[in-house]
Parts: sequence; structure tokens; C-alpha cells
Amino acid sequence: MSKLPETLDPADWETHRAVAHQMVDDAIDYIRDVRSRPVWQDMPPQVREQFRKGLSHEGMPLPNVYQQVMTEVFPFPMGNIHPRFWMWYMGASNFTGAMGDFLAAILGSNLGGGDHAAAEIDKQVIGWMKEMIGYPAEASGTLVSGGSMANLIGLTVARNVMSGIDLRNEGIGALSAPMRFYGSDQVHSCHRIAVEAMGLGNNALRRIPSDADCRMDLAALRTAITEDRASGLHPACVIATAGTVNTGAIDDLAAIADLCAEEGLWMHVDGCIGGLLAIAPKGRAMVNGIARADSIAIDPHKWLHAPFEVGCALVKDADAHLRTFTVTPEYLEAAPRGIASGAWLHDFGLQTSRGFRALKVWMALKEHGLAKFGRLIDQDLDHACYLSDRIIATPNLELCFPGVINIVCFRYDPGGLSEEALKRLNTEIMVRMQETGIAAVSDTTVRGRHCLRAAINNHRTLPSDLDMLTGEVVRLGEILAQNTRMKKG
Amino acid sequence: MSKLPETLDPADWETHRAVAHQMVDDAIDYIRDVRSRPVWQDMPPQVREQFRKGLSHEGMPLPNVYQQVMTEVFPFPMGNIHPRFWMWYMGASNFTGAMGDFLAAILGSNLGGGDHAAAEIDKQVIGWMKEMIGYPAEASGTLVSGGSMANLIGLTVARNVMSGIDLRNEGIGALSAPMRFYGSDQVHSCHRIAVEAMGLGNNALRRIPSDADCRMDLAALRTAITEDRASGLHPACVIATAGTVNTGAIDDLAAIADLCAEEGLWMHVDGCIGGLLAIAPKGRAMVNGIARADSIAIDPHKWLHAPFEVGCALVKDADAHLRTFTVTPEYLEAAPRGIASGAWLHDFGLQTSRGFRALKVWMALKEHGLAKFGRLIDQDLDHACYLSDRIIATPNLELCFPGVINIVCFRYDPGGLSEEALKRLNTEIMVRMQETGIAAVSDTTVRGRHCLRAAINNHRTLPSDLDMLTGEVVRLGEILAQNTRMKKG
Ligand SMILES: Cc1ncc(COP(=O)(O)O)c(C=O)c1O
Ligand SMILES: Cc1ncc(COP(=O)(O)O)c(C=O)c1O
Repeated sequence: MSKLPETLDPADWETHRAVAHQMVDDAIDYIRDVRSRPVWQDMPPQVREQFRKGLSHEGMPLPNVYQQVMTEVFPFPMGNIHPRFWMWYMGASNFTGAMGDFLAAILGSNLGGGDHAAAEIDKQVIGWMKEMIGYPAEASGTLVSGGSMANLIGLTVARNVMSGIDLRNEGIGALSAPMRFYGSDQVHSCHRIAVEAMGLGNNALRRIPSDADCRMDLAALRTAITEDRASGLHPACVIATAGTVNTGAIDDLAAIADLCAEEGLWMHVDGCIGGLLAIAPKGRAMVNGIARADSIAIDPHKWLHAPFEVGCALVKDADAHLRTFTVTPEYLEAAPRGIASGAWLHDFGLQTSRGFRALKVWMALKEHGLAKFGRLIDQDLDHACYLSDRIIATPNLELCFPGVINIVCFRYDPGGLSEEALKRLNTEIMVRMQETGIAAVSDTTVRGRHCLRAAINNHRTLPSDLDMLTGEVVRLGEILAQNTRMKKG
Repeated sequence: MSKLPETLDPADWETHRAVAHQMVDDAIDYIRDVRSRPVWQDMPPQVREQFRKGLSHEGMPLPNVYQQVMTEVFPFPMGNIHPRFWMWYMGASNFTGAMGDFLAAILGSNLGGGDHAAAEIDKQVIGWMKEMIGYPAEASGTLVSGGSMANLIGLTVARNVMSGIDLRNEGIGALSAPMRFYGSDQVHSCHRIAVEAMGLGNNALRRIPSDADCRMDLAALRTAITEDRASGLHPACVIATAGTVNTGAIDDLAAIADLCAEEGLWMHVDGCIGGLLAIAPKGRAMVNGIARADSIAIDPHKWLHAPFEVGCALVKDADAHLRTFTVTPEYLEAAPRGIASGAWLHDFGLQTSRGFRALKVWMALKEHGLAKFGRLIDQDLDHACYLSDRIIATPNLELCFPGVINIVCFRYDPGGLSEEALKRLNTEIMVRMQETGIAAVSDTTVRGRHCLRAAINNHRTLPSDLDMLTGEVVRLGEILAQNTRMKKG
């Protein structure tokens, strides 16, 4: 060895220590003062320019790197930690969770396996998730990158178990009859991605019409299953949604469980949005029957507000779960004692290396306790009712769909406009509110009508924020409708 | 709204501020003093007991939660940040990267899409990865949870493109001939998981024998392709490994690229271990031809030492990449302006929500510069040569395989023992070194022989650490061999 060894550790830690302390203070100020900033703002061209630069061969001192983050990144967030962000369905993060991510990275442990504290906490958090949902202690689970992956895990187990053949070795080509999965026409796009990735193909996911409440029509489901059997297909799995992304509708889980039991189908619940209602005193009843599912996807980075990423797949039959993914090559043989003596945690999914995402969930649950997370879910439900009531009480605002959970679909309708003009008008209202940084809602189409959509999954929202939303929609609506009339007239 | 709104934010930030400042100091001490601690230590039963507890309904103050992390988690790591951890192939993390994970969680932005700074940095880091590998700027890519997912992304694109049918809709059942993928018998287990998940089945991944250097035997590959065509199968993709997990062997990438071009096959490179040799002045030549691949998996949480998790999938034909995964449901329609006007970053993989894992890579690359990361890779190669030389020079130590990159396979062999007895002896040496916390190596089987395996992917390792390793293996080997003889005699 000729040269002096190099390392990523600094020779002297004092600069790093000072920057990291500054980071803590800045982070706290950033969250504490979030309400005083715009939800979102557009990046100026000179900032975007910075992000187009190529790799630099030489480094720069950490304080300069940090300075860039503070001046070029932090002022331009997506916005979801802001009290008036109700756009895509996601959580609002939390400070303790951020500490969890930092500490996990410092500890550095890999959750692919091994016998160490992070592995124990990973298993403990899975256990807690099972408790929340009412799943038996013998069930198994794994923490993954999010709800999409959690659904993919559950559906892959369903595919393999229901195939009745040695699918791991032989593949889908060996099936004697094509498998069919069922979901409502409200099913999240990740299920399409999942059946495509799994090689079943999008056609294998039959969309069952939803009823007036946007819930899966179970008579239609029965008919579809009968039809499919008659045409030689193999009905295998029903994907029930507990909280659709469009309107928050919750399929009739108990009835679907009965149907699956009768028909011999696998029941998977996409509980990414609503699964955690199970911990909410008032919300709980809405997900009755969820624990009867064979597999469930839940998403702590939504209603537990864990910082991205963390999703959770639960499978009732732990052995079926393991049989779907386990693989132990020679360089991963379990050792009798020592570091490698633990369970192979990668045996429950598609990852080999896995981060310690459990820690952020564990720390926040310890700090706040389960009861508070339940109350926060009920609070979001209350906020949605409050907003719906305000909309109903406000002239020219129309509630487009009766709220079920924490998603409110509405629009500004001054009367006399075509559906197309209403869509243009409401889209412009939505975009203006984002551009001024006042509030972020999204838009969608519910039963053929375009509407604005507020997903109130936000532990920072106050009722006054919702007042501001309705006020601003009406104010912008009036100005824009006026402009339209003036242009026309 | 009757009750006072609750939030996860503290009413008064001073406690959280104090705990977070303490966290920074503790984290720095933890890394700075890592050398003085054991690599790993077993958890006492009373610590394990803590991790078996159920959910608590009530919370506890953050200082108490933090105290638990410090006393029950931090003393019991996997060990991979320690200078004498050379066990599984992974990185050693770094402090700036941990800051990146904290800041990403504070910012909270979701990389599923949208127009915000995190999305720009995500794209910038993908661009940098392309630069590192020598990929064209028009290629596309995505940051995923790790190398396993990065391989799955590349192989899924390969499957869909090569199928020649509308595989997304019709699935594998519609193929007229079963597809075949090829990898060497040294291919990582994640590829088995991938072909199984993709519905092709493990039998669709034909393992080609490796030669004496543990590289794919290309004559055998040619024969296999010919055979498969003759029996009506559809040869589709060759998985070349740039750095096998067992020995670090690098398949002949340029020759495989030629072969794939001739045969009309997709070339995927699993570069999780060795892909980043492309940035190392001395190592670079070993991965000549890597940029000719149609898709590549690289793994910044290995040789860039990013904290878990971050892998990277690159696909040369960006359009093929997009066509494999894109899906735009009504609630994700891109808006003309505002938050939703950016690209849909989830269109390049299996996740919908995605964390800002780019930040930790971006910050560390900015701080240290690319050149230093290249030198650190060469340093690991030097360390492996140094260790190999020491092994050769030390009586009773046997180098089991000539080192290629940074993986060294060796064993203690005092002579006169059966293969079985040698395996028992070396396993016991490995476990004892872990239990005493002195060093962590793994074991594997190379060309039928059991051996110890040191994967020197560690920016904290010094040559003296490697001296300590050989010294300790010999010391323990002598004691244990002596015991065996005494028991026998
Ligand atoms: C009903 C539903 N399922 C699944 C998902 C996917 O979850 P993730 O974004 O965590 O991958 C979402 C995300 O919004 C969802 O709303
Ligand atoms: C050659 C190879 N490919 C793929 C992987 C999987 O990478 P990850 O653990 O990041 O999923 C590994 C992990 O060790 C590997 O060594």
C-alpha cells in the first residue's frame, strides 16, 4: 500500500458537526414555520439550471453543499408537509420520523437478514401492523418501499398459491387455464402495473363496475366469476379496496370475504388508503371484515405520516408467503451463531438489501402512542365532514360525491356552463391556487364528471385552512367566470 | 369541530430540538469511534425482550424514545459501518448520506412525480449515473430500492420488448414460444426471484456453466442458445454479471455484447457489484463494454456507500423503458401548470410513491467529487491484493481463488483434514471472530470448496485491519485445530 488510505469520513469532524447542528435548527424552523410559506412555488430558471449540471470530479466543502440544499432545494418542495396540501393521497411526514431515517442511516444496518437490533425492530413493527389490523400473530409480513410494492407482494403470493402448479419453476406458461383477478373499476393503477409485472397481463385483471357509491358491485362480481368459469378461465383472486384513491370508497369487505370463501378465491385488500381506519375509534367500523383477507397492503407513509418510504404487506398464511419468495444460495447459508444466525428477512419479498425503514415508524409510534394516531385519523374524517358541510352551504360550490372518508370531491359551478367549460374553469382554479401557493388540491373524474379533489390526510390542517380553501375557490371562480363572460360578451 | 385539533408536531419544539442536537453529537461520536467498538455483539435476552413487546396505546416523551434507541439499538448493529466488516457485499454508509436521508424526510417530497426540486435532483442523479457508466444522455433510468429491484426493472423491460407481443395486456400465456433468459451459474439469487416474479419461472433462466475463472463460458452459452432455438424456445436475454457475489468475477462484457448483437438478444448487465468500476482509474478496464448493454443495474448503496436504500436501473432505449411501465389514470392526469406539471417519475418502475433517495447520493457526490469515489474503489482493489498477498505469504492460509476485484476467498488449512472437517473448522473461525467482535467475514462455496470470503467494500478499512484478520484466523485456527486433535487423541 503506497498512498495514504482515503475515507469518506472527515479528518476532523468539527465542520460536519457544525453543519449537522445547523441542519437540525433549520429543519425545526422549516417545519415550525411551514404555515407561513407557500404550499408550492415554481422554480426560477437559474435554480433549474443548477440541476442540469453534470458530475463534478472534484468535491466541495460540506457547508457549501448544505448551502445549496437550503437555497435551491428547500424553498421548492412538492408541498405535502404544508397544512393546506390535500392533493395526492400521501402523508405529511413528521420530525421524529426524520430522526428515524437519520439514525437508520448512521447505524447502517441492512435488513436483508442477520441477527441484530434493527432486524428485531423490523419484526416488531410488522407485529404491530398485524395488531392494528386485527391479524393473527402467526401471520407474516414485510416492510417494503410503499403501497404499490405491498400490493405486488400480496398479489404474487396469491398468484403462486392459487395457480395450483409449481409456478415458481414453471411460470405462467404452464397454467392450464388463464388466471383471473378481479378489482373494481376504481382499483388503483398499481394493480395494473402489478398484474403486468407478474406476467398475467392487464387483461387478467377484470374490472368490475362500481355502484353509485363507487363500491364494487358484488352482483356484477358474481356474474363475472360465473362467466369466466364458463369460458374456461380460472378465477383466482379478488382485490377489495379499502379506500379508493378517487373518492375514498370502501368495498364491502365482509361480503367480499364471504364471496371469496364460497368461491374458493384469494381475498386481497388494498388498504393503502383506508386499512388503518382499523385503529380509529370512529373509523373502525368502516373496515369491518378486513382481517378476513388472505393478504393486505397498508401504507404507513400515508395515514401514519411516516416519511417516505414505507409500505407494509401482510399475509395470513406465513408459510405461503415464505414459499413464494424464499431462496437460499450458498453464500447466504444461515450460520449456527453470529451475525448470520438470524432469519433471512429478504425471504419475504423482492428485495435483497433492505433499509431500516422500521425505525421511523417505531419511534413515532412510541412517541405518540397508537391512540393518538387513531384520533388523528378520526380528525381527518371530521375535517372532511367539515369541508363537505362548508361546500354544501356555499353558493356555487357543488359537492360532487358524498364524502366517505377523508376525500372530498367538489367543484365550482356558477351555472350555465357546459361540462367542458366547467372542467376548464376548475382546472384553472386548481392551478392558480397552486401557483399562488395558497392551497393544493388535485382534480379527477368521478362518474363522468370532472371535479376538484381534496384528500385531507394531514395532521397539520386546521378548520380555518379549509375555510380558506372554499373562500379561495369561490374568489378565483368568480374572477375566472367573469373573465370568461367578458371574453364572450 | 369540537375538540382542539391535534398534530404530530410538538406544541413547543425545544425538547425535540435538544434531542436532535444530542442525536447529531451521538451520531458523530458513533461513527468516529466505531473502530474502538466490536464489529458486532450478541444482544442480551433482556434487550431482545424489549423488541417482543406489543403496541403501546399511550406515547412517551421523545427523550425516552431516543434513550431506548441509544441503549438498545445502537450497541447492536449488523456491523457494516465498522472498518473490519467484510461480510456480505454492501457499503459502509457515510455521514453526509445520513444527513441526506434526514433532509429528504424533513422536506417530505414524493418522487412519484410533480414539478419540484427533488424531482429535478432525482433526474440529475440519474444523469450522473449514466455519465459514470458511459451511457448516452438519451438513455433513461430510475432510482429504486436496491440492486434486486434495479435488475427486476431491466429484466421486465427486456421481457416486454423481446416478447414481440402486447405482453402488458396479454401476459405470458399469449407467447407462442417460451422465453429464455441466460445467466451464468454464478448469477445472483435476485435474478431467480425476478424471473419468478415476472411469471417466466425459474426454468426460464438457464444457468450457463462458468469457467475456471468463474466467468460465463461463452461457448456453452452459444450452444445453449442454439439448442433452445432448436427445441422451439425463444432465446431473449443474456444477463451478464459485472462482479459476481461469490468471487467478484466479471463476465466478458464485450464478447457478450457481440454475441447478443449477432443473436438478436437483449443484453442486461448486473453491475450491482462491479458496474461502478467504470469510475475507477485502475478498475475501469475490467468493465470494458458495459455501456453496450441494453439495460444495467448499479447499486449506489454498495460502492458509493450511500446509506440504504438506493439502487439504479438504466435502460438505453428510454422509450422502451417508458412503454413498459407508463400508466396514467384520471386522477394522475398531468396538469398544464403547477405542482402536477412535471413528468410522472413513477412511469419508470413499479413504485407509485417514491422517496427522495437521490439526495443522499447527490450530497455525497457533491462533497467528495467523483474522482475520490473512483480512488476509493481502486483502494478497495488494492486492499484485496494486499490481503491476497498476506494470505499467500502466511503458512496454513490458502487463497482459494485468485482475487479479481475486492472479494478474497481463502481458508485456514493446517493440512491433514477432510473437506468436511475444514468446513467445520473455518465456519467456527468465522463465527468466533464475529462473536468476539474482531472481524466479520462470510463463507461460501467456490468450485466445490468451502471457504471464507472477505468482501472489502469499506472506506474505513486500513491495511492493519487486514493484518489483524489474517493474524486472528491463524490464531483461532491453531487453537481450534489443536482442540480437535486433543478430542481425537
Ligand atoms: C388505493 C391505493 N393503493 C395503492 C397505492 C400505492 O401506494 P404507494 O404510492 O405507497 O405505492 C395508492 C397510492 O396513492 C392508493 O391510493
Ligand atoms: C451481483 C449482485 N446482484 C444483485 C444484488 C442485489 O442487490 P441489493 O442487495 O441491493 O438488492 C447483489 C447484492 O449483493 C449482488 O451482489
